Amino acid sequence: MKGDVLAVLGLGYMGGSVALAARRAGVVQTVVGYDPDPQVAPVALERGIADRLAGTAAQAVAGAGVVVLAGPVQSLGATLTAIAPAVAAEALVVDIGSVKAPVVAAAEGTSLADRFVGCHPLAGTEATGPAAARPDLYAGKPLFVCPTARTPAQVLARARGFWQALGATVLDLDPDTHDVFMAAASHLPHVSAYALVETLTGQADMLALRIPPSFPPTSLRDASRVAASNPRIWRDILLANRTHLLPLVRALEESLGRLRRGLEAEDARAVEEYLERGRACRQKIVG
Amino acid sequence: MKGDVLAVLGLGYMGGSVALAARRAGVVQTVVGYDPDPQVAPVALERGIADRLAGTAAQAVAGAGVVVLAGPVQSLGATLTAIAPAVAAEALVVDIGSVKAPVVAAAEGTSLADRFVGCHPLAGTEATGPAAARPDLYAGKPLFVCPTARTPAQVLARARGFWQALGATVLDLDPDTHDVFMAAASHLPHVSAYALVETLTGQADMLALRIPPSFPPTSLRDASRVAASNPRIWRDILLANRTHLLPLVRALEESLGRLRRGLEAEDARAVEEYLERGRACRQKIVG
Repeated sequence: MKGDVLAVLGLGYMGGSVALAARRAGVVQTVVGYDPDPQVAPVALERGIADRLAGTAAQAVAGAGVVVLAGPVQSLGATLTAIAPAVAAEALVVDIGSVKAPVVAAAEGTSLADRFVGCHPLAGTEATGPAAARPDLYAGKPLFVCPTARTPAQVLARARGFWQALGATVLDLDPDTHDVFMAAASHLPHVSAYALVETLTGQADMLALRIPPSFPPTSLRDASRVAASNPRIWRDILLANRTHLLPLVRALEESLGRLRRGLEAEDARAVEEYLERGRACRQKIVG
Repeated sequence: MKGDVLAVLGLGYMGGSVALAARRAGVVQTVVGYDPDPQVAPVALERGIADRLAGTAAQAVAGAGVVVLAGPVQSLGATLTAIAPAVAAEALVVDIGSVKAPVVAAAEGTSLADRFVGCHPLAGTEATGPAAARPDLYAGKPLFVCPTARTPAQVLARARGFWQALGATVLDLDPDTHDVFMAAASHLPHVSAYALVETLTGQADMLALRIPPSFPPTSLRDASRVAASNPRIWRDILLANRTHLLPLVRALEESLGRLRRGLEAEDARAVEEYLERGRACRQKIVG
C-alpha cells in the first residue's frame, strides 16, 4: 500500500530526522529521498535515511503515501508546483518550514490544496546536514499544524496522526497567527543573536585571544548560540517572514536606542527601569 | 592569626559563595559578614555564610586577614574609603566586581593601594541572593586578577593563592584591558538579551498564550537568558563600564540597521553575507 512509502524532499537535519523517526515508529516501510545537493544525498543513503534516491522531486513522490517537503522555505512553492501532477490522489503532503502563510498560499494555488497541511515542528537547533539527523528529534517536541478553511478534516487528522506517531505534541494554529508568533518567538531572537556577533566582528581577534580556553563567557555563548545556525536557511526564513519580522527589528533598534540614551545620560533610574521591563517580560514569556 | 578571619562585605550570591568556598577550602576559620540590606544579612547567617554579622563595613574588616568586597560595583569606591582606616596593615583586600578600572583607581586613592588587588571571577549567573550561594561556585572557573604597577608582588601572590585555593583558574589582565574585554564579552551580550525582551514587552501576552507549556522556543530562551539577571546589579555594571560599552551599543544599533535594510530591500545576498559574518565571528570567539 502506498501509505508505506514516504517521500522526503530535502535530506538535511530536519528532513533526515523525519525519515529516521517515521521508520523507527513503523509508520512507513520505505523512504524515497530527493535532495538537489549532490553532497547531501549520498550521506542520507549511507546513514539509512533513504532506502533509495530519486533524480527529481516529482520522481520521488510518485507512489508515495506521505510526502514531506523539507527543503528551504523559499523553495517550497516551486517544489509544490513541480510535484503536483505526480502526487497520488490519496497521498498526504506536509512541509516542515518555519514560515507558514507563503507555503500554504502556494499549496492552495495547486491541485494539492485538498492533500496539503502546512506543519512546523519546534525542533530545530543550530545543527544542519544529514549526518546530524536523529530519529528522536521530534519526540516530545511541540509541532504546529496550520490548516485553512479548505483543508479536509480527514487530511488534517492524518497529518496530526503522522506527527503524533513520531512523538510530537501537535498544536493547531492558523498560518498567519503562526507567522506572527514565530516572528517574535524565534525569528527576532535569531536576529538578535546574529546581530550580537556581527557587531563583534572587529573584536573577534581580541576576544579569541582573551577568552580562556574552554571558558567562553556564558552570556556571550548563550546570547549568540543560534547564530551558529546555517546562514542560508536563516536568510530564507527571515526573508520569507519579513512582513511580520521587520516591525520587530525596527522595535529592537528603538529599544537599544532607549537603553543607549539612558547610559549616555547616566540616568540610573531609566536604565534600571529598562532592565526591569526586560526581565519582567522574559519572566512572563519563558518563566 | 588574622589570616584566619575573612570579612565579606556584601553577602549575596557571589559574596556568599566566596565565604562558603573559603571555609570549605580551609583557608579561613571565621567569616565576619556585612550587608546593608536587612533582608540579606539574616539569610547569610542562617545559611552559615557568616559566623557573625558586623554593623558596618569598617567594623567587619577590623581584625580580618582577608577582606572581600562583594557589593555593587558603584558602591566599591565608597566602601574602600570607609574601611581604609580599619583594615590591618598585613591584610589582603580584593573585590569581585565586573568592572575593574574604576575600583582600582579608587583603591589607589586610599591607603589600601599597597594591599588591594582588583579581581573578577567569571562565575556569575542570573542567580542572586544568599540563598543561592554555593561553595563550588568558583571551582574550575576563570578569574581575572588585575594588578597595577603599584601592586606589591607578594600581595598579588596572596590574591592568586586565595582564589586558587577556592578552585579558580587565575589569569592576569591589566584593569583597562579587562574592561574593554568585558564590554564585548559580557556587557554587550547582556544588553542584547535585555533589549530582546524589552522589545517584546508589547507581545508578552500573545507569546505567553501561544507558547506551549514547558516548551519555550529555545532560541528565545537562550538569547534572553541573562536578562533574568538582577536589574539593579546590571544597571550598575553597565553604567560603570559605559565608556567602553557605549561604542559597542551604537555598533549593535548600526549592525541591526544593516540587517534591516537588507531585509527591506529583499537583498538575499546581503542578508546571507551578514548572517555568515555573524556565524564566522561566533565560531572564532566561542568555537
